[in-house]
Amino acid sequence: MRSAQITIKDIAKELGISASTVSRALKDHPDISEKTRIAVQELAKKLHYKPNAIALSLRQSKGNVIGIIVPQIVHQFFSSVISGIEEHAFKKGYNIIICQSNESEEREIQNTQILISSRVDGVIIAMTKETQNYEHFINIRENNIPMVFFDRVCPELDTDRVIIDDREAAYKATEYLIKTGCKRIVHFAGPPNLDISKNRQQGYIDALIDNKLTHDKELIISTADTLKKGGIAVKDLLSKNITFDGIFTVNDMAAVGAMKELKKHGLKIPEQVSIFGFTNENISKISTPSLSTVEQHGFKMGYIASKLLLKRINSKDAFNAITKVVNGKLVIRKSTF
Amino acid sequence: MRSAQITIKDIAKELGISASTVSRALKDHPDISEKTRIAVQELAKKLHYKPNAIALSLRQSKGNVIGIIVPQIVHQFFSSVISGIEEHAFKKGYNIIICQSNESEEREIQNTQILISSRVDGVIIAMTKETQNYEHFINIRENNIPMVFFDRVCPELDTDRVIIDDREAAYKATEYLIKTGCKRIVHFAGPPNLDISKNRQQGYIDALIDNKLTHDKELIISTADTLKKGGIAVKDLLSKNITFDGIFTVNDMAAVGAMKELKKHGLKIPEQVSIFGFTNENISKISTPSLSTVEQHGFKMGYIASKLLLKRINSKDAFNAITKVVNGKLVIRKSTF
Repeated sequence: MRSAQITIKDIAKELGISASTVSRALKDHPDISEKTRIAVQELAKKLHYKPNAIALSLRQSKGNVIGIIVPQIVHQFFSSVISGIEEHAFKKGYNIIICQSNESEEREIQNTQILISSRVDGVIIAMTKETQNYEHFINIRENNIPMVFFDRVCPELDTDRVIIDDREAAYKATEYLIKTGCKRIVHFAGPPNLDISKNRQQGYIDALIDNKLTHDKELIISTADTLKKGGIAVKDLLSKNITFDGIFTVNDMAAVGAMKELKKHGLKIPEQVSIFGFTNENISKISTPSLSTVEQHGFKMGYIASKLLLKRINSKDAFNAITKVVNGKLVIRKSTF
Repeated sequence: MRSAQITIKDIAKELGISASTVSRALKDHPDISEKTRIAVQELAKKLHYKPNAIALSLRQSKGNVIGIIVPQIVHQFFSSVISGIEEHAFKKGYNIIICQSNESEEREIQNTQILISSRVDGVIIAMTKETQNYEHFINIRENNIPMVFFDRVCPELDTDRVIIDDREAAYKATEYLIKTGCKRIVHFAGPPNLDISKNRQQGYIDALIDNKLTHDKELIISTADTLKKGGIAVKDLLSKNITFDGIFTVNDMAAVGAMKELKKHGLKIPEQVSIFGFTNENISKISTPSLSTVEQHGFKMGYIASKLLLKRINSKDAFNAITKVVNGKLVIRKSTF
């Protein structure tokens, strides 16, 4: 069902010409004959045609634009951060364009180039897992374009940043498992080259040490960070007869994969094994049982990143790089006591 | 852990100057003193510094870029379509920038303007739920930028399109419920102004009629298209004592919401109520029970959209608009017999 408002297409249909011709006739385009121009403009008047005001006002100017580079938009954490950036940026009159690096350094380099060519006013970035050269980021700076990193920050560039205290959040999650009775806690870790993986693993280890539990190498599974890998890791542990009564995972997908596999083997959650995830994606609410996890505040991180960036864009004076730390929050559901 | 490769930052550290100065010194930038330039270049040589080849080659040219406008990247269907577009476009040497309309016509208009200003080579679009004026699309055409619509197509513009046969897929899903014994099938529909909602509902009705089942108005729930609304719709039906033994939903989230609520009331799936979703998002594999649904082939739709667009971009001759129809496929899991 369409609204009753007259559009260019209605005028085009009535006169048997193309919408594009009508549009140009309304704008006195020199390619349009006098006869057509008059016919169009008279009919438009008769039908009370109103041009689309926003489209007209925007036709001449690009407006202010922020570019975002993220590894993968399909991850809910990144799409939440983007929503947070938009929430703030839109209010301040900025628009957003998004590039995906797909965890490829080469693609990330190309993304920075596109954003520079598109003359964006600022850039917000979370690095790929594999980025080890930073010249494309320096290139952004050389073009005098302010940038803010979030979550996966560039360790060698002194820029504004928004991060979560991963070690602290992982510590609290592990401590929760210990306080609710777990004695042998497994950690499904992320890719070893990312800071977030290292920090979450460190938080897990620190909590075990502080609570006088042994931390055993066989209890840390590296790069068990997807639905599939979480399932495989559980299968491996069980086949090796390694006993455990709790799992803390680097993200929610791995936790859900672990739960599926545990249920397949008839193990009760949380009675026999408690599970703690990380990120608080939608899936943690939907899984059976629902998943205890760390709320990573993606939306809030995005909102703060946009605030930092616009402050930098609109400041006439230079000021030192700012790091904002967001605290993770435990969300307790049915996969733990 | 970083690779052993020498970066600009290493040189900067060694000399006690900024990375940006090093970068400019390596490029013989006139702002850099002779002394600094020589110091930097000699150290670079000594350390076997290799410039980042890709960044250098890209520094001058924007390359080919496709712009995408989608309602919301958080929906897995749209992120799958984007992956499909990228898969094809990257192979052909095109890069991608993405804009979200957030279901706002105003924002969609701004997005088109940004893409035009960014001088993209082509645009791929799925419209918002509320778009009723099409001048911003005509504006794209007037700038001689080819465009392809997918899924939510612009009904009044004669452009290349990639669609799924929604009526046919909904018909097959409903027919499956009937063949496995359902006699009173409810439909949780989408927003009434979208073609996809209308077509899925029509497929449902046609299947009931062809199988001589009455289609009752009280069995069609309008705009029950989210996790929450799916749950509320089930609650309402039960409180009104409306009997039903099957539900066909316009998307997977509504189906999962319905299942959660049914389980809460102690109803067995599929023994007492069978459920059929639409889209085949990840959630349909993860839910308990796993969800029977329609595979919407988002990745394939994106791949085809990119192919159509590049054909249009690279053709010297005009040719008629092409519509490609992708067929939905039933995926049978545990929420049905």
